[in-house]
Amino acid sequence: MNRVTIEKSVLSENNRIAADLRTALAASGALALNFISSPGSGKTALLEKTLEMLPEGMRVVVLTGDIQTDNDARRLAQYGYPVRQITTGGTCHLDAAMVDAHLGGWLTEGFDLLLIENVGNLVCPTSYDLGEDAKVVILSVTEGEDKPLKYPGIYRKAELVILNKVDLLPYVPFQRQLARDNARRINPEIEIIETSCVTGEGLPQWMSWLGARAVQKASAGGERTVCVAAPV
Amino acid sequence: MNRVTIEKSVLSENNRIAADLRTALAASGALALNFISSPGSGKTALLEKTLEMLPEGMRVVVLTGDIQTDNDARRLAQYGYPVRQITTGGTCHLDAAMVDAHLGGWLTEGFDLLLIENVGNLVCPTSYDLGEDAKVVILSVTEGEDKPLKYPGIYRKAELVILNKVDLLPYVPFQRQLARDNARRINPEIEIIETSCVTGEGLPQWMSWLGARAVQKASAGGERTVCVAAPV
Repeated sequence: MNRVTIEKSVLSENNRIAADLRTALAASGALALNFISSPGSGKTALLEKTLEMLPEGMRVVVLTGDIQTDNDARRLAQYGYPVRQITTGGTCHLDAAMVDAHLGGWLTEGFDLLLIENVGNLVCPTSYDLGEDAKVVILSVTEGEDKPLKYPGIYRKAELVILNKVDLLPYVPFQRQLARDNARRINPEIEIIETSCVTGEGLPQWMSWLGARAVQKASAGGERTVCVAAPV
Repeated sequence: MNRVTIEKSVLSENNRIAADLRTALAASGALALNFISSPGSGKTALLEKTLEMLPEGMRVVVLTGDIQTDNDARRLAQYGYPVRQITTGGTCHLDAAMVDAHLGGWLTEGFDLLLIENVGNLVCPTSYDLGEDAKVVILSVTEGEDKPLKYPGIYRKAELVILNKVDLLPYVPFQRQLARDNARRINPEIEIIETSCVTGEGLPQWMSWLGARAVQKASAGGERTVCVAAPV
């Protein structure tokens, strides 16, 4: 068996577990989002703002992946929602088995929203389905507008680009329209929201997107009512 | 044969090719550096500044890796040195076989310095020896000071951290001393140079480091004279 065959077999086993997860999430009506980006693009800060702004009563659980450290889990746990760290110990991505193993009793207890912060890496996490409803790619304006062209895989698979750290636009040579055009060259359907976790710009739009997706999922699958008063 | 065995076998084959490359580079007295970082930390901009500042007469060749596009090769080719793009087509790192295949006739013709810009990824490139003399990790101040702790592998293996984009320090909540301490917690011997490719801060120190390493390598192995008047 050569390396390619082994990789295919690993991905096929991952897809089987991801499909089971998706079925369980669909039955419960819970929305699951998989956040993927370079290291340092602001995934954890965006999730902190998200947890801060979520409407009261929404049952949210968070999984956060890292190669080492539980820094992110400790940051996110301050907002009062259950958070579990997945430390991969060298592996460059989360896979469906890791998510399955760390959901523990959460699926039985029930929740409305699962936020999965992947390992900071624009390449490998793209190949691993985690049973999520949507992948969200975060691009910070300090990284350059060419990234959608250089890492097309994640832009093809994501439904939304969060163009983050727009408060730094005056200080970096970043052409926002070119970045938007590059993302749409790879995926003409992709949605784009510009945000800053420092000034709060764009966060209401992001929360509206999230609220709309949560309602859509809950009404498609579950029997429970989700509190989704869009915060502004 | 399971996946771990296959991975070990791939790495062992990589190490064999890397060892041959290292022997060839040692015989010629040429210095080879492998630049590793997140996407968007400024690898290409640093290499542009480096090519611009190198002393006349130094024979430099450049390999630049990307998953897609030859943008970086086109940017770097403007400085008059031979540049070759390695497009990995989805693979998340360069390996020694790719470097070997793209060196072509350069080893026979002779050169003093080989700059290898790896794929933007803090994880996977760390495992692949390319026959280089040193790995250089680039961390931009927009990425957060926790990155050495979250991606310890590359900080353990690198000889130098380029702490880049320091011109943005007034606009980001980055604690430079904490970043330095974190890097040294992982690797007490690691050298750190702070740079900005916008203001030019730190670039003379970087060029001195590079010059000193080139002289050291040339005097250890080769018979040729390397022009290394440190530019300021």
